[in-house]
Amino acid sequence: MKVAVLGATGLVGRTMLKLIEDRAWVSGDPVLLSSARGAGTKLEFAGRNLECKEVTAEDFHDVDIALFSAGGDASRIWGPVAAGAGAWVVDNSSAWRMEAGVPLVVPEINGRLIKPAGLGEGGIIANPNCSTIQVAMAVAPLDEVFGVREAHVTTLQAVSGAGQKAVAELERQEKNPSSEGNDIFPRPIFRNAIPAIGAALPDGSFEEEDKVVRELRKILDRGDDLAVTCTATRVPVVTGHSAAVRLVCDKPINLVRAADALNKWPGVKVDSDPHGYLTPREIAGQATVHVGRLRAETNNPHALMLWVVADNLLKGAALNAVQIADLLAGKSQS
Amino acid sequence: MKVAVLGATGLVGRTMLKLIEDRAWVSGDPVLLSSARGAGTKLEFAGRNLECKEVTAEDFHDVDIALFSAGGDASRIWGPVAAGAGAWVVDNSSAWRMEAGVPLVVPEINGRLIKPAGLGEGGIIANPNCSTIQVAMAVAPLDEVFGVREAHVTTLQAVSGAGQKAVAELERQEKNPSSEGNDIFPRPIFRNAIPAIGAALPDGSFEEEDKVVRELRKILDRGDDLAVTCTATRVPVVTGHSAAVRLVCDKPINLVRAADALNKWPGVKVDSDPHGYLTPREIAGQATVHVGRLRAETNNPHALMLWVVADNLLKGAALNAVQIADLLAGKSQS
Repeated sequence: MKVAVLGATGLVGRTMLKLIEDRAWVSGDPVLLSSARGAGTKLEFAGRNLECKEVTAEDFHDVDIALFSAGGDASRIWGPVAAGAGAWVVDNSSAWRMEAGVPLVVPEINGRLIKPAGLGEGGIIANPNCSTIQVAMAVAPLDEVFGVREAHVTTLQAVSGAGQKAVAELERQEKNPSSEGNDIFPRPIFRNAIPAIGAALPDGSFEEEDKVVRELRKILDRGDDLAVTCTATRVPVVTGHSAAVRLVCDKPINLVRAADALNKWPGVKVDSDPHGYLTPREIAGQATVHVGRLRAETNNPHALMLWVVADNLLKGAALNAVQIADLLAGKSQS
Repeated sequence: MKVAVLGATGLVGRTMLKLIEDRAWVSGDPVLLSSARGAGTKLEFAGRNLECKEVTAEDFHDVDIALFSAGGDASRIWGPVAAGAGAWVVDNSSAWRMEAGVPLVVPEINGRLIKPAGLGEGGIIANPNCSTIQVAMAVAPLDEVFGVREAHVTTLQAVSGAGQKAVAELERQEKNPSSEGNDIFPRPIFRNAIPAIGAALPDGSFEEEDKVVRELRKILDRGDDLAVTCTATRVPVVTGHSAAVRLVCDKPINLVRAADALNKWPGVKVDSDPHGYLTPREIAGQATVHVGRLRAETNNPHALMLWVVADNLLKGAALNAVQIADLLAGKSQS
C-alpha cells in the first residue's frame, strides 16, 4: 500500500511515521505532506531522510492510505480530495468524527466497521479524540459484561496532546517560572491545573469534554441512553493522559468479573489490586491502555470506579490511526 | 487568650503563626512547640524571633488555645494532655476528626458547634482535611437549596499538602528530572499525576479518599444517605488544591439559584459563567474558596458539576483552624 502522511512534521505525524516504518504493508517511501510552513522539513524514515512537501491535490493520486494529522481545517479541505482520488483517509482531527456515515473507530472495539480496502475505493475513517480512546478502551469491556448506563469522567491530560508548541511552553515555564506569555494554554501550565481544553461551547462545556461525551457514545454505538459527563483538565505532564472514571451499570458489579473482562480485552491491562495503578510518566511510550484503582462503590452496588492511563500520542492518536490502517491493509490489529 | 502552636516549624504551623499575628484576642507571644527535632528553630512572629521548644506537659498549663499541626501521633498524645490542662485544642491532624463528641468544624458551615470558651474548660476541636474543607464549602450551600444526595469528587492536590519535604522533592525533581529517590511520594511527582494519597485502606480506597467521604458527611451532619465517592490524585502543583465535583440532588437544579446560593455563602466566590474558572496557581495565598465551571447536567436535571479551588494551606488548614480559634475567642469568623 502506498502511504501519505499529512501533518508529518507534527508530534502525532512523526509518531505515525515511526510506527509505519516496520509495517510490511507499506510499499516504498511514504509521501510526507504538510502546510507551506512545514514544507522542506527533513524527517527520518527507516534510516533515510525524506523531505516534506506542501500538500496539493495531485499528491493523493497514487496513494492507498492517507494518514491525516494536520488539524481540522486541513482535514475538511483535503479529506474529500484524497478520498475522491481513491485514497482511504484515516483522519486524526475532529473534523469528520461525528459525520454520519464516517466510521469512528477504535480497532479493539468496533474494528468490524472496517473492511480491507479495495484499490481505488477511497473514503474517510475518523480516529477518535485521545482521551476518548483510552476511556472507551476501559468502558467497552465493562459495558459488555455489566451494561454501562452512566460514565462520569475527569481527565488529567498531558501537554503533548496540544502539540509541540505546548510542550515547548511547559518547558519554557519550567526553566523560567516567571516567564510571561501563555500562547497555547489560557493560563500558566507549569505547577498548575487548567480545567479548560478546546473552545467554549454553548452548552457550558469545552470542546474536549464534548468530544468525550459524543464520541464515546458513537464508538460504543449508543445514544442518549448512555449518560456521559466529563470535566477535562490540563496538567503539567508531558506525555500520558489519565482519567478518573466512575461507571453506573445495569447489572450489579462483581470486581473479579470486571478485572477479568478488562484483562481479556486486547490492548488493555488491569491491575486488579484496588490500590494498584500506573502513572502517566511510567506508561509513556507504551501501546497498552492501563486500568488501575478498580473499586466497587459501597453506596451503589451497580457502580464502580477506575483510573485509566495511556500514551496520548500512541493509543490516543498515532497508534490507533495506524491500527486502523492495518485493518484497511487487511492485517489484524497489533 | 494565651496561644500555643504545636508543630510550629511545619508549613501549616508557620502559616498559623502568620495568621494569628494580627488577631486581637492573642495575648503576648505564642508558645512555639515542636518535636525534639524542631526544638531550637527560630521563627518570626510580629517582627520578633521566637524560639521553638520541645513540647512537654507543662507547656499547656497557662494556654487557652493550642493550635496543633504536628501529625496524628503527636495529636493523640498531646491532645488529651493539653485539653486536660484546660486548653482548647484546635487539631489539624486526622487523629480526632471522626471521634464521637469531637466537633469537626468548618466555621461557615457548622461554626454553631463552637461556643466561646470559658477559661480552663478545655477540649478538642478537629480541623477537617484540606481537600474536604473546600469541597464542603462548595457542597453546603447547594445542599441547603437542592438537598445533595450524591457527591462524586476527583481531586488534583498540591504537594504542599504533604509538607515542606514534599515541596522540596518536587523542586529537586524539577531541577534534575532524572534525580532518583521518591521519599515522600510513591512515584516521581514532577511531570506526573499520582492517584494515591495516604495509606492504603482495606476497602480499596486510600486514606485521603476516605477522609473526603467520612468527614464530608460529619461536617454536613449527614449519614449514609449522602453517597460520597472520591478519587484523590497528587499533581505537580505547589499550593492550591482543585476538585472536580459532580452532585446529584433531591430537587431539580436551577443554575441561577445555585450560583446565588454559592455567592451568598461566606468565604465562597463563584464564577457563574460555566466556562469561568480559576486555577490553583492563581488562588494560592487567597482565603476564599473559588467555584467555577458551574454546569447543569443534560442527562440528569437533578445533577450539576463544578470546579473548586482553594489554598490548601490557608482555608484547607491554617486559616480554618484560626477561624475556629476566632470562634473560641468569641469573635465572629473573618
